[in-house]
Amino acid sequence: MKVLFVIGSGAKHLEEEISRHGNLINVEIKKFPDGEKYVRVLERGKEAIVIQSTYHPQDENLIEALLLGDALSEAGFKKLKIVIPYLAYSRQDRVTKEGEPISVRAIMKMLGLYYDELYVFDIHNPKTLEHFPGIAKNIYPAEAIANYFKDKLGEGLILAPDKGALERAKRVAEVLGLEYSHFEKERISPTEVRMKPVDVDVNGKNVLIVDDIISTGGTMIKAANILRELGAKEIFVVATHGVFAEGAIERVSKAVNELAVTNTIPTEVSKISIVDYIVKLGEKE
Amino acid sequence: MKVLFVIGSGAKHLEEEISRHGNLINVEIKKFPDGEKYVRVLERGKEAIVIQSTYHPQDENLIEALLLGDALSEAGFKKLKIVIPYLAYSRQDRVTKEGEPISVRAIMKMLGLYYDELYVFDIHNPKTLEHFPGIAKNIYPAEAIANYFKDKLGEGLILAPDKGALERAKRVAEVLGLEYSHFEKERISPTEVRMKPVDVDVNGKNVLIVDDIISTGGTMIKAANILRELGAKEIFVVATHGVFAEGAIERVSKAVNELAVTNTIPTEVSKISIVDYIVKLGEKE
Repeated sequence: MKVLFVIGSGAKHLEEEISRHGNLINVEIKKFPDGEKYVRVLERGKEAIVIQSTYHPQDENLIEALLLGDALSEAGFKKLKIVIPYLAYSRQDRVTKEGEPISVRAIMKMLGLYYDELYVFDIHNPKTLEHFPGIAKNIYPAEAIANYFKDKLGEGLILAPDKGALERAKRVAEVLGLEYSHFEKERISPTEVRMKPVDVDVNGKNVLIVDDIISTGGTMIKAANILRELGAKEIFVVATHGVFAEGAIERVSKAVNELAVTNTIPTEVSKISIVDYIVKLGEKE
Repeated sequence: MKVLFVIGSGAKHLEEEISRHGNLINVEIKKFPDGEKYVRVLERGKEAIVIQSTYHPQDENLIEALLLGDALSEAGFKKLKIVIPYLAYSRQDRVTKEGEPISVRAIMKMLGLYYDELYVFDIHNPKTLEHFPGIAKNIYPAEAIANYFKDKLGEGLILAPDKGALERAKRVAEVLGLEYSHFEKERISPTEVRMKPVDVDVNGKNVLIVDDIISTGGTMIKAANILRELGAKEIFVVATHGVFAEGAIERVSKAVNELAVTNTIPTEVSKISIVDYIVKLGEKE
């Protein structure tokens, strides 16, 4: 069956690469002078995969995904899937203070109005996928990350910045057949806490620190400085989503040998492509 | 029963006036540095009426309404109503070119995820309210408009810019006990069409032209110029929603004796308040 891809405004940066592997549906997407989005699907079919990343302006990208869903079902498409490389609101995943929403739940319910299947990349809390009424899957691009750093790392090791992120380090390490571990916090005085890598010797080794999102980059810089003190050779930092705060790319880049993120969000250090994973979703059928 | 009002970012301009008549729920609404909205409801209750107008940035205001709905239901509110003085996407109400969505349907389905009742003001096409899964009502602020123009108009008449808008002129005219009619298009040469008021003599009379939305104001200016040629005395223009394009307020104001809109959208000519209608929704219970 021919699966057709629809590229939303938040996935324009992936269009050229996807078009080399899949069939794109022509769509018209524009904004009216008052700021309202207008979308129009220019081809027909049975099944479509919408690709829409929801970085800033996230709310516009989300409403656009909703409108594309309405247009596709109005046009007779029977099965709709959506790939959201970076899902906005995924960090608002629980009520930490009474009165808060579970924002990611609201977004998933909204997407569920039109889409049968949802695919996200390295979501902050995979449990939240339960809020989506249809089939929802989380993709971790371990191979893409591993392949990018394979030669640079050599016999190095992979570290997660905390225990919660260990699974990522493990997945990447397994592809490369390398050692992996995580940092933990150690109280060194009543007021001072420092990070240290657990049960591994980094001295003389190349190290890759793996996380899901980098925003300010503060943790990554701290981790890198500690590794350097401990005698690590080359230090690399990778995250799936580069939600960089102002100046973060420069600050992290200065502290390490290389910083890279995937292209779920287009940034100047989005050197690792997730397009293969998306193309595979279209081939499965 | 105590009904609590929640003021969204798009209704900030109504907050002071509403607070004089109703009980407001304290909410915290802010934006994270990456652009994500954060909302938090700081009080508890059984029933709430969210007030959120969805002019630009309309998508942010819509997503905020969704998040508020999630927060309120998470906080235990059992019945949720939403008042949307100006509903974005309401003009995208049909498929005019194949492949288009019915955008207003998508928005109403989204709101229906959390809200039991929807109240809008002077929606472009009242039939579209059928897309809302719960109770949906359209409010036309005829009394507020009529009261504002009562003394200015005197024994004048009310005109709709076209037959489709006649119901509005009728509603306002009935409050004031005045005559009403509409413009129609008359072909005066193979290439030229002009507007003329049907079956009424405007000579020497004050005239109020009534419409739902003014954006460029082109139609209103044309209509006013014709009325002036026909000897009308004072010419007033009113619309429910002032979705003004750049420079439209100035252009329309110059062409007529007075331009006024309601405060569904805050503009410098939003002289007519709809707050009484909103307050009444809270009193009904």
